[in-house]
Amino acid sequence: MQQLTVELGDRSYPIFIGVGLLGQRDLFAPFIVGKQVCIVTDDTVAPLYLKALQETLQGYQLSTVVLPTGESYKNWATLQQIFDTLLAERHDRRTTLIALGGGVIGDMTGFAAACYQRGVNFIQVPTTLLSQVDSSVGGKTGINHPAGKNMLGAFHQPQAVIIDTASLITLPPREISAGLAEVIKYGLIRDPQFLDWLESNMAGLRELQHDLVTEAIARSCKAKAEVVAADEREGGVRAILNLGHTFGHAIEAHQGYGQWLHGEAVGAGMVMALSMSRRIGWIDQAEAERGIRIIKSAGLPICSPASMSPADFIELMAVDKKVLDGQLRLVLLKAIGEAVVTAEFDSETLQATLAEVQS
Amino acid sequence: MQQLTVELGDRSYPIFIGVGLLGQRDLFAPFIVGKQVCIVTDDTVAPLYLKALQETLQGYQLSTVVLPTGESYKNWATLQQIFDTLLAERHDRRTTLIALGGGVIGDMTGFAAACYQRGVNFIQVPTTLLSQVDSSVGGKTGINHPAGKNMLGAFHQPQAVIIDTASLITLPPREISAGLAEVIKYGLIRDPQFLDWLESNMAGLRELQHDLVTEAIARSCKAKAEVVAADEREGGVRAILNLGHTFGHAIEAHQGYGQWLHGEAVGAGMVMALSMSRRIGWIDQAEAERGIRIIKSAGLPICSPASMSPADFIELMAVDKKVLDGQLRLVLLKAIGEAVVTAEFDSETLQATLAEVQS
Repeated sequence: MQQLTVELGDRSYPIFIGVGLLGQRDLFAPFIVGKQVCIVTDDTVAPLYLKALQETLQGYQLSTVVLPTGESYKNWATLQQIFDTLLAERHDRRTTLIALGGGVIGDMTGFAAACYQRGVNFIQVPTTLLSQVDSSVGGKTGINHPAGKNMLGAFHQPQAVIIDTASLITLPPREISAGLAEVIKYGLIRDPQFLDWLESNMAGLRELQHDLVTEAIARSCKAKAEVVAADEREGGVRAILNLGHTFGHAIEAHQGYGQWLHGEAVGAGMVMALSMSRRIGWIDQAEAERGIRIIKSAGLPICSPASMSPADFIELMAVDKKVLDGQLRLVLLKAIGEAVVTAEFDSETLQATLAEVQS
Repeated sequence: MQQLTVELGDRSYPIFIGVGLLGQRDLFAPFIVGKQVCIVTDDTVAPLYLKALQETLQGYQLSTVVLPTGESYKNWATLQQIFDTLLAERHDRRTTLIALGGGVIGDMTGFAAACYQRGVNFIQVPTTLLSQVDSSVGGKTGINHPAGKNMLGAFHQPQAVIIDTASLITLPPREISAGLAEVIKYGLIRDPQFLDWLESNMAGLRELQHDLVTEAIARSCKAKAEVVAADEREGGVRAILNLGHTFGHAIEAHQGYGQWLHGEAVGAGMVMALSMSRRIGWIDQAEAERGIRIIKSAGLPICSPASMSPADFIELMAVDKKVLDGQLRLVLLKAIGEAVVTAEFDSETLQATLAEVQS
């Protein structure tokens, strides 16, 4: 088992990475202060891992909430099911919520924990590659609004992140690819050596070779932890973690949440960021093409949806959380391994990029 | 104009108290960092004070949300109207929300500010006595759940609290009485001299004699600011501000939110707390009767609703936020001016108290 720490003063917490952690009661117990626990999961993950976790946590006053699966349910109506159960089963301020599932379950459970009685503890137990390498770490929680992804939420850090790599075995290939999008992101924004390593090992990663996957998760979590420690509430540098996300969120909102997986939209979005960084002259043609090749080799889309026009992107990106005083800001690459948040581009460059990547 | 400060380190903020502050642009400007402002109010307050505030804030990109009036609308569906407007009118992370209204508007606007894009600034402009003396200060925000009042929310401090005492002139007598409940509370929990002063001046307060009302607001805000500074997130002493509230929230939930005003329910709830403190032997009969007399003299109910049985109270109080490990805890009085949070009572004493105050 590997252990990392997210350094945030009195909100610091550990990340555990290993095989079979779901069954290790001693890993969970130190992070449960009261007698009450509520496991939140979805109807895809529940048949696979819920029983094991319930057995691990025998002896606590245990509630379970099984939500419908997918990004299209990441809204208040679904969140309400968590609150209904917590209240019906009399959970108090010392309760601990456990998010057992992918990024949607993690984001919703974290937001429920942030709001319930004005804040209770929670533990992340991510079961998808995407949530293990990215969304379970850093305390961003929230739900979608029809007009924009993750528009409503809170910064609320978990007590611990417990990553059981055994859970990846049940993941469909499409979900593996989606997770690899966020892994590639860390290489592109801050670690050229990691990008080299990913380029060399992509086939093995897609086949879930265990040593490779564990290393990819650990390096990604370490990168995320360092960025979050430097800027917990995204006043500055943390925004670089959003490479490709402004474009990607627009795709998700336009297609209807859940049609494109988040990682797929980020994959196509990173292609746009690479293309635009080249147009501005920050990276050269060969670097952009290499980046796009790596994204493609992960099994990710490299074009935007056929049904989506440049005007659709402009419209949807106008509500991005990085917009300030009406000015769109994007995460772009000064070089491979060096990302910045910038408004230094003209609308023609943006339009040309959007037209180029249409399928 | 009087000025106080809520001392919370880098989250410290001022409270301004005076006549005509709604028209003073210089008071607002330092607390608005971006170009965007969204005023949130209700359909009772809007016809009275919205235009004045809009004129004060000319030059900003100004949005307005007018919500239906009352506690029964303090829920997610209503909150959604704020988010819809913010997104439709493209408010970004630097926007400032302004809560123009009573406690319901303040709690909802604050919670909207806590959640929108994971947190934006807001300013409290309380227009009712209750919100001016209590709910606008301290950063407790939230909405109700059918099973419990204020069950969902956040601790999110405002940038400033701007109290225009002129707005009290339009307040119905019933609302004045409701506000006085929270004023009396400060006397009962921590300030016997203030209670003496209130006893002597109750008639003038109910007539809204300006010097008296201003002093009551200032002393209440000072008390609230001191308690909040000592315990922002209610790990301990802040809970004493909930004197009578556990009983009161049960009344509000049972009667349907909005049937009893919050202050009315707190008034009756404080009667129960006084009665129970006497039964335990912490205060004597004369002290309890005096407390009840002062509550009654403010025009507040001193009995619970006729339709509500002791069993109803027990059921509804079981989801109170002060319950820990299944144990109900109440704010009671060791002496007049000294409140504690305690589970040191037997169920017979509670039952007897609940039976005694039935109308």
